[in-house]
Formats: sequence, C-alpha cells, structure tokens
Amino acid sequence: MRKFDTQKLEQILKSRFFINQTAQIYGGMAGLFDMGPILFGIKQNFFSLFRKHFIQYDKLFEIDTSILLPYSVLKSSGHVDKFCDILIIDKKNKNSYRADHLIIDYLSKLNLNDTIKNDIKRVDVANCLEIDELIKKYKILSPDNNELSSAMKFNLMFETNLGYKENQSVFLRPETAQGQFLNFKKLYEFNNKKMPFGSASIGKAFRNEISPRSGLIRTREFEQAEIEFFVSPTKKNFEKFLKVKNLKLKLCFDDKEKLMSLEDAVKSNIIDNEILGYFIGRTYLFLEKIGIDTKLIRFRQHKKDEMAHYAKDCWDCEIFSSYGWIECVGIADRSAYDLTCHSKATGIDLSFSEKIVPPINKKEWKVNLVKKDWIKIFKKDYEVFNNEISSLDEEFIKNNMFKENDKNFLNYKFQDKDYKLECSLVDITIHEIKTIPDVIEPSFGVGRILYILLEHAFYMRENRPVLRLKPIMSHTKVVISYVVFNTEFTKYIEEINDKLYNKNIVVEINDRSCSIGKKYSSCDEIGVPFFITFDPESLIDNKVTIRERDSMEQIRVKISEVVELITELVNENISWEEIKLKN
Amino acid sequence: MRKFDTQKLEQILKSRFFINQTAQIYGGMAGLFDMGPILFGIKQNFFSLFRKHFIQYDKLFEIDTSILLPYSVLKSSGHVDKFCDILIIDKKNKNSYRADHLIIDYLSKLNLNDTIKNDIKRVDVANCLEIDELIKKYKILSPDNNELSSAMKFNLMFETNLGYKENQSVFLRPETAQGQFLNFKKLYEFNNKKMPFGSASIGKAFRNEISPRSGLIRTREFEQAEIEFFVSPTKKNFEKFLKVKNLKLKLCFDDKEKLMSLEDAVKSNIIDNEILGYFIGRTYLFLEKIGIDTKLIRFRQHKKDEMAHYAKDCWDCEIFSSYGWIECVGIADRSAYDLTCHSKATGIDLSFSEKIVPPINKKEWKVNLVKKDWIKIFKKDYEVFNNEISSLDEEFIKNNMFKENDKNFLNYKFQDKDYKLECSLVDITIHEIKTIPDVIEPSFGVGRILYILLEHAFYMRENRPVLRLKPIMSHTKVVISYVVFNTEFTKYIEEINDKLYNKNIVVEINDRSCSIGKKYSSCDEIGVPFFITFDPESLIDNKVTIRERDSMEQIRVKISEVVELITELVNENISWEEIKLKN
Repeated sequence: MRKFDTQKLEQILKSRFFINQTAQIYGGMAGLFDMGPILFGIKQNFFSLFRKHFIQYDKLFEIDTSILLPYSVLKSSGHVDKFCDILIIDKKNKNSYRADHLIIDYLSKLNLNDTIKNDIKRVDVANCLEIDELIKKYKILSPDNNELSSAMKFNLMFETNLGYKENQSVFLRPETAQGQFLNFKKLYEFNNKKMPFGSASIGKAFRNEISPRSGLIRTREFEQAEIEFFVSPTKKNFEKFLKVKNLKLKLCFDDKEKLMSLEDAVKSNIIDNEILGYFIGRTYLFLEKIGIDTKLIRFRQHKKDEMAHYAKDCWDCEIFSSYGWIECVGIADRSAYDLTCHSKATGIDLSFSEKIVPPINKKEWKVNLVKKDWIKIFKKDYEVFNNEISSLDEEFIKNNMFKENDKNFLNYKFQDKDYKLECSLVDITIHEIKTIPDVIEPSFGVGRILYILLEHAFYMRENRPVLRLKPIMSHTKVVISYVVFNTEFTKYIEEINDKLYNKNIVVEINDRSCSIGKKYSSCDEIGVPFFITFDPESLIDNKVTIRERDSMEQIRVKISEVVELITELVNENISWEEIKLKN
Repeated sequence: MRKFDTQKLEQILKSRFFINQTAQIYGGMAGLFDMGPILFGIKQNFFSLFRKHFIQYDKLFEIDTSILLPYSVLKSSGHVDKFCDILIIDKKNKNSYRADHLIIDYLSKLNLNDTIKNDIKRVDVANCLEIDELIKKYKILSPDNNELSSAMKFNLMFETNLGYKENQSVFLRPETAQGQFLNFKKLYEFNNKKMPFGSASIGKAFRNEISPRSGLIRTREFEQAEIEFFVSPTKKNFEKFLKVKNLKLKLCFDDKEKLMSLEDAVKSNIIDNEILGYFIGRTYLFLEKIGIDTKLIRFRQHKKDEMAHYAKDCWDCEIFSSYGWIECVGIADRSAYDLTCHSKATGIDLSFSEKIVPPINKKEWKVNLVKKDWIKIFKKDYEVFNNEISSLDEEFIKNNMFKENDKNFLNYKFQDKDYKLECSLVDITIHEIKTIPDVIEPSFGVGRILYILLEHAFYMRENRPVLRLKPIMSHTKVVISYVVFNTEFTKYIEEINDKLYNKNIVVEINDRSCSIGKKYSSCDEIGVPFFITFDPESLIDNKVTIRERDSMEQIRVKISEVVELITELVNENISWEEIKLKN
C-alpha cells in the first residue's frame, strides 16, 4: 500500500495555517480545529463540486436546518437512548476513556493468541457488562496503571438549555439528517407530492467524543454533507442507474473483496437495490472528480452487528490513508425508521400517497371510532390515538378480535391502559395507498475526506513539498509575481488581477522580495497550480511566463492572452499538455 | 414611507416553504427556523456575492472557526460578564420576560406625558436597580396580571460541557468575531507580517433570547458574515477609500439626519477614519447589488450609551422594513479591545511590529527581571507576569518609582500580591515598535437582510404575488415547460437543461398539467426571472418563447440560441430591454 509522509504534511498544515487548534493561544481544545484560508478555500471548492455533482444534477432540495434540536425529536429518533459510547474512568486521577479504544490498545500489546484476537474483535460491539468482564479477565489498568471504574454508557450529544425556563433541554444535532426528516412533509408538498425525490443539507454536526484522537479524522465539531433520498419501499429501481451500472468498483462483503460492476452487484443482490447502487456509483465519481486516488477507494458492506440503530443496509465508502482504511461516506438504507418514529411521536402523517385507478372496493375489518366519544377521553392525545388505530393492520385486528354478545371487539393498550374497541366489517373503497417512504442516505464526512485528499495530493519533490491538487480544488488558482520588481509591471499586474477577479478566479499577487525559486516552492506547498512571472523581457516582448506546478514546465505567452489561458486551465477546459502543444 | 404587505408575504413564505419553524411537527421551537430550498438558494447567492464583493475584492482571508468556545476565551472577551439581558419573571406562572420589552410595551399603552416618554427612553440602558424602580413606580404587572420578580441579569450564551470531565464549560459562540481574534497571530504570519489586512468568517452564532419575537429578525440561531480588518491605530487612512469617497449617503448622528458624501463625513470627523468610511461605502454598494431598495438605507452612529462593551465607534446600517428601521450591519471600530484582552489573559504577543530604520538609541527606565529567580516564584504564570512587566509604560515606572539604599524600586501588584521590583536606567536600541492593532469590523446579520430583501422585492400584481428579485439573487433562474405536453419536446428540454447545468445555472423543468398561466404565477411567487415555453409551433419553427417575470413580456427565439441568451440574462451581462431590441 501507499506510504504517506504525514509528519512533513502536518508540519506544513500548521506552518501554512491550513489548520489551527481552536483557542490555541489558550492551550487549545481537544477535538476542535479552526480552518485557515487555504483549507477553507479547498472546502468551498469541495462544496461547489458537491452541489453541482449531486444537488443540481439530481435536482435535490437543499435546505438549512437548525443546529439546536429539542429533546423530543432526539428521543423519538433513538439518539437519546442509543447514541452512546462506553466510558471507563481511572479511579485515581478521574481521567475518562472510551472503553473500546483502551481495551483494544491494551490487548494489542499482548502476545496475540486466538482468544485475545477473538476478544479484540468483540470489543467493538460489547455492552457494559461485557466490557467489565474483559477488564476483569485481563486485569486491565488505566494508562497510568490505576484501577478502572465499571463501564457506563455516555451519550455523545452536547446538551444545553433554551431560554430561561428550566427543563427546556435542547441538543446540538448529532447529524444533519434529522432536520431533513422533520421537514419531510414540507419537502413532499414542495415537490408537488411526487415521488421519489431527495433533499440535502450541508452543515455542522456535533459529537461529544470522550477522548478524541486521530486528529482531523474524528473531531467533536464536524461538517457533514448529507443527502436523504425518499423512495417508495417497493420501487427502488431507478432509471438513472443506467448511467453508473458499468462502473467496476472494489466491493467488500461477507469477508471478501471483489472487483465488480454495479450492475452485477445489484443483480446478484449484493447491493440491495438500484438507488443504493446509483449513489455508490455517484459517490465514486465524485471522489474521483475532486482528486482522491481511486485505487485507494473501496466500498464495504456493514455487518449486521455494526450497523447504526436506524440502518437496514449500509455501505461505507472507505479511503486508504495514513490511518488505514477510513470510513468517509456512509451510504445507508435507513428504511422508514426515522419517519415512522417521528410520525408515531407527533401523530402527524408522514406518508406519501399513490392514487389507485380505478379504485378498489372491498370489505375490511375496522375499529369503529366515534370521535366525539373518544376525544372526551383522550383530549389532546386523541389525534395520536386515532392515528395508531387507523393504521392498524387488518390482519392484526382479525387475529386479536373476540366475540361478545354478537359483537366483535379488540383489546388495545394505549398509554399503559387497556381499551375495548368495537370492530366491524365495513365496505371500503381504496382510492389511494399511503406509505411512509424509505430513505436512502449518502452521508459525507467532509473534514476527513479533505484531510485524506491532502494526504493523497502531498509528496516531496527533491526535498521540497508539493500539494498536487487539481486546479478546480486548489484555493488560490494563480499567483502573479516578477523576477525583480519594476514599477512598470504594476499596471499589467493589476489589469490581470482585475480581469481574473471578474471571472471569479482567486488570484494572489506576490510582492515579496525573495527569489523566484522561493516564490515557486512556497506556492507548490499550498497547491497553487499556476504562476505568472514578469521579467525584464516582458516590457520588450509583452510576454510573461506561466509555470505549471506539477511538471515545473514554463511557457511564454502574450500578456494579452494570459487571462484567457489561465481561465481555461483553471476550469479544466484545457490541459497543460494541450496548452504546450499550442505554444 | 413604503408600506409592506407582510401578511400576504408571510403566507407565501410558509406555503412555498421558504421557511418552516424548527421541529414544527413537534410544535416548533420559539426563535428557531429552518430554511427551505428557495430561501436557501437565495442565501447561497448572497454568500457568493459577499465573497466576491468583499473577500476576493479586498483579498481578505476567510477562515472557519469552531462554534464551541471555552469559558476562558469568553471570560476574557467580556461576554461572560457583559453579554446579558435583564430578565423578570411572572411570580405566579413563572413565565420569563425581557425587562426592557415588557416595560416599553406597558408604558407605551399609557397616556404618554413627558415623564413617561423619558422613562421609555431610559429603559434600553437601565440596570437591574433602575428596572426594579420603574416596575415599582408604575406598578407594572406581567401580561397575565401577576406580580413580577426583581430584575436579574441573564447571560445570553448557550452553555454546554466538553467531554466527560466536569467543569469543562464551553459556550456556543455569540459572534464569529472571536474565532478570528484567536487566530490573529496565525493570520498575521500568513500575511507575511504585513499590515493592514483583513479576515472574514461566515457562520452560525447563537444568542439565547429570553423570549424571542420579531420572527426572522431576531432568532436564537443566526448566521453572521463578519469581517475583521486589522490596522495600525495610527494609520487609518486607506488608499481604496478613493473609490467610495464620492458616495452620498444618509447619515444619522447627533440626533439629525444628513445626506453627505463619505469624503465630507470623514473630513469633518463625523466618520472617524477612512477605513470605517470605506466599509460604510462598500456595505452600501453591496446592499445595492443584492437588490435592497437604496432609498430605504441609512447609516446611524451609535450613541455612547448604546455601544457594545468592546466598541469605540460604531455605525449601524439600518434598512427600513415592516418592523421599522432595523439594524442589519454593524460597522464598528472595536479598537484594540479584544486582542488586548486575549493577549493579557494568555501572555501571548498579539501585536504587529514596525521596523525603525535607522534604529533609535535612548536611555529608558526598566524593571530588572532576572528570569531564573522569578520563574521559581511564578512557575507557569511567569510568562504572563513577564509580559505585563515588559509592557509597562516608562511614564508609569517613573511616576511610581521610589529610592531605597541608592537603588530604585517599583511596587507592583500581581495576582493580588505586592512585589518590590528593582528598576534601572538602561541603554536601549529600538529596532521595532510593537503595537496591538485596532480592528474595524463590518458585521452582517444575514437572516434579517434576507428577510428585508424579500419584503423589498415582494408586491401584488393584480392580486397575484410577485417576488421581484434580481436574477443573480433568485434561486431557480429559469423554468422550462410547455403549453400542452408533446413527447417530442423531451429531447429539447433535456438538452437545454443539460447545457444550463453545465453553465452552473439552476434550472427546473415544470411537467405539471396545469395551465401555462398558473405555471407563470407559481414561478413569479418564488422569484424565477425567466420562463421558457414550448408550444406546438416550436416543432415547426424551432423556436420557443422566453417570458420575463417583471414585464411579463415574451420574446420568441431559436431553440439553438436560448441557452446563450439565458446565460447572459442570468449573469446580468445583458438586460431584458437589450434582448428585446435585438429580437
């Protein structure tokens, strides 16, 4: 596998202010980073391409939802109960550790026999009791050689309070997805009640890691780009799948790795459906477009026991980095889990409807609910009750029904009380079927993709660092400078600067007095693809040189043509090779 | 003054999903909103123009800093102590109110004599005691007619905890500015230690309003676009001021309103300096560019008692809306306040330096600090101590010095203890002067500007709502549809769609079966500027019509030319009037 010179890279990330620890002058905060101008620019380019490749291409609805979410939402979604890591504490110095990390670190240093190897595999999915057992079995101590506490669940959401009133508990969202689910009804109406369709959100999410490590790969505040594609559970074929079906990708499933076309993978049910396959393909094409080394991309299917609490099937797009294979995109079929939870909790219909033409007439067992009687009993909860009752399956009613005085009844438990409900066989005409949609979710971890992109792009050329970013991803696209300053250059430089500005191309003017060689290598380090140099000749022949970062080749072009050439190069409409042939 | 049809507008903002209350299906959360696709698209256009107009134009360094900030940072910046509103509580039902709002509402309903008018003016700047007095004086009750509690300060920051350890208190940032100040040293080095320069951040900030109202104007989670321009306190002249100096703007100061050129305002010291004047001018030009009605813009100077705790001089850009004149941009001279606080708290040098050529030789009184002696006493606090001592003014030393046994000493208090420090007259050579820079800060409230932009753009045309947004600000730039569907249109529509997609122009295809008139008005409502219609003739003459939203005029153009025309129109390279003349 490829080797990465991470030490040198990280040195440059700091010295050229790609990143800085948050509040570094105050000693920094673990798991929190600020992005400087260069990396921020790269991130903006990432977003532009993401929006073009996914959002505009598939006409997704991008929305921007609140970071603060109420307790009730995250209780329904399962995050309050299940979004946890297991914590253990050094009994003496009170340092806290993620149990799985600490135990794996500890066991990995032992002589690995099969028992230990097996135990290492189990740690990831162990519960508190199992963690306690492992600690006992191996007599594991803290890194400071102290006794450890019992294992306990620790919720990873940041909690705060809204307004002055007590108990208005709110959380910082753990994912942007929930905001999209909460708006499903609005989105569905916005799309004129047609299916399928997708929404997208780009924004910050938060995870209160117990003891963050792995630098930019796992941070407490991170940016997600998430797509939620809402589909009928029975219609997961997709016309656009045609456009990606011939892609051959490295797929990992059932403990093997295979190079397979997406078409074959879907046909043989390895990938569950065409929409999942479509987004796997589109994800691969996107990563290729931004410049990830495609040889270092694979798609790995989750095993049943590692899947998130909401997922039915999930493929991780993993990219190889100095940290090994890292999950960068999760492409999950969340089924109807979230919408069903929110619909149950609120009593609000979150289904889509399909017209049936002609309507179907049939007889069906139903519970007779007389609204005016029951609303007296349940008051504001009546809607929720009615919703539950109306959505009861006929099979359920038939199987649980009993006769009493020639009438049919069903015993039904609601809010911990039993109710006897009368049922009868009624004529019904079915005009439409209402179904809660399934959701296919490609979820991108922006920070880690950017970090790995930097690793892939970085290399040392004769002891000089170079960031071989694609021109569309580089922040500064071109730098203008000179060998030795001459006041007559100024008007030309400003003119080129202004014209490139009008074409939305980020340009810098380097007016430092160092050598041109130093200027070049300073730009190579931060990935600037092109460099325009004025020299004494420029005032005679009206020409400047353009230097290309990767080949270090230079061509000499007319000043009047330089803006057009740079524009074409930066937008990747023409390659450096083609330009050279022309000159 | 202009009237706004807010009722109708707000109806459309809801029905067309410009906005939705956060977690609306759970009953919503006061002061929190989600943005749907249309408004989100408009916001993206706002950001693109902001980046071009400010960030690229002035080569500012855009950075992205953490939302979570530690206690120590916000303690130093003054937010822990001063970022507060005054709260009063209904003693019976425990509802909480912002004291100033409640008292002003109450007093405004009385017969307004001069005393009451005066008291209303005082409320804004009253402290807790004064609030208590006013409540007593007017016997003010809560809206539910209950007695009110004493006034108390309520900090507006959201607080949470980092990791598992207790007392790792962190806050959601109240402004993006602090993240920029914390990175000043990095930014200064990034700019090769040259002054002046600016940074910028766009992102969410949070304010835990006691009882939010005013809809989108004042929300608990909001987006800011802030520029921090770092300058030498003695060099606030600015070459680029030339480019805006002739702008005549409505300025409010000393209780009067005057139309004045920026040049006159700076010359007569009404606006303190050219950099402040420059950003006032650039702000005006930006608001004009995005489509704010410039007749409804004014710049109002803060009075001494309404200025934020960090500001030295401040101008609000106010825009007139249905809520009256609303502060949308604050352009403040924060002086060296923040950097000085952070430097003092951390002991880290946050100054810039200016070389003095040739160096100056002189004698100066200094405290003699022998590091190895004092580091034993202060240990990790030595740096802070040393920093304080080194930055002591010579005047201060001379004025406080005393003689003892022929030696000179200074008594100095540090961390509540007194120390006796020896001083002497030493030869010094001054090679450079170190100064903490002043900061000029234009701070944009994105949400409120967008909301007011919608108010300015919205009007009723023969009972039909129209959003007259500029093409560069509209989300969807063009819709393609037909009078009656014909399968032969499909390939043309897809071709136009794909070509516009490649030019990054947001295009929608409307395939609903309603009348073309309905399609037009549905698009007018959300501000789509252009509409391409296929009709039966299209298949014969290879032409389509383009309809323009505001004039409702239509022109007929060749299908092969429509993409180029729309591109020019959308990028505002050509006007509709010019297109008409050509056809």
